[in-house]
Amino acid sequence: MSGIAKTPNPPYYAVIFTSFRTEGDNGYAEMAEKMEELAKAQKGFLGIESARDGLGITVSYWETLEDIAAWHKHAEHKLAQMSGYKTWYQSFKTRVCLVERDYGFEK
Amino acid sequence: MSGIAKTPNPPYYAVIFTSFRTEGDNGYAEMAEKMEELAKAQKGFLGIESARDGLGITVSYWETLEDIAAWHKHAEHKLAQMSGYKTWYQSFKTRVCLVERDYGFEK
Repeated sequence: MSGIAKTPNPPYYAVIFTSFRTEGDNGYAEMAEKMEELAKAQKGFLGIESARDGLGITVSYWETLEDIAAWHKHAEHKLAQMSGYKTWYQSFKTRVCLVERDYGFEK
Repeated sequence: MSGIAKTPNPPYYAVIFTSFRTEGDNGYAEMAEKMEELAKAQKGFLGIESARDGLGITVSYWETLEDIAAWHKHAEHKLAQMSGYKTWYQSFKTRVCLVERDYGFEK
């Protein structure tokens, strides 16, 4: 299970990826895990949060727009994106955001 | 089930609310539904996306920071926030973001 990302003080960037999957796994779970591990190894990666109950929301956090662009262009990630379009996703929306302010609470 | 929000062209704002619930419902589901309906009626509201599987992620979209501040201060929302701190949430993080760019895909 994903936790709340321990991000630094703003400003930093967030990529909100909202999606509906197609029917069946078709290799998705294995690739999703592999991509998460690979993302964590990239320059500027700050954290990731995921939840799905029908609609899936994954938010990844990054230091700079350049880090996001580099991850988007990563060769293995590009292959995964192609399978995303072809096989895994019915629809998705990606939003690239500047996190300006944050606050939290823990019991 | 929540869908992918039909937001306008950027720039606009996103509030990413990531949380872990406490045990039991304790009136949460009813209040969450009420707050979502109330949020939708606020000035500047653009959309909302939610998913939970252990970790919960709710992203609401807004035209301006002033709209976000007004909703944060709304009297009924303030009461719900108090119950959130006292009863419903084990931990949460709120991030206020400027959406700079977005793109999507639909089969």
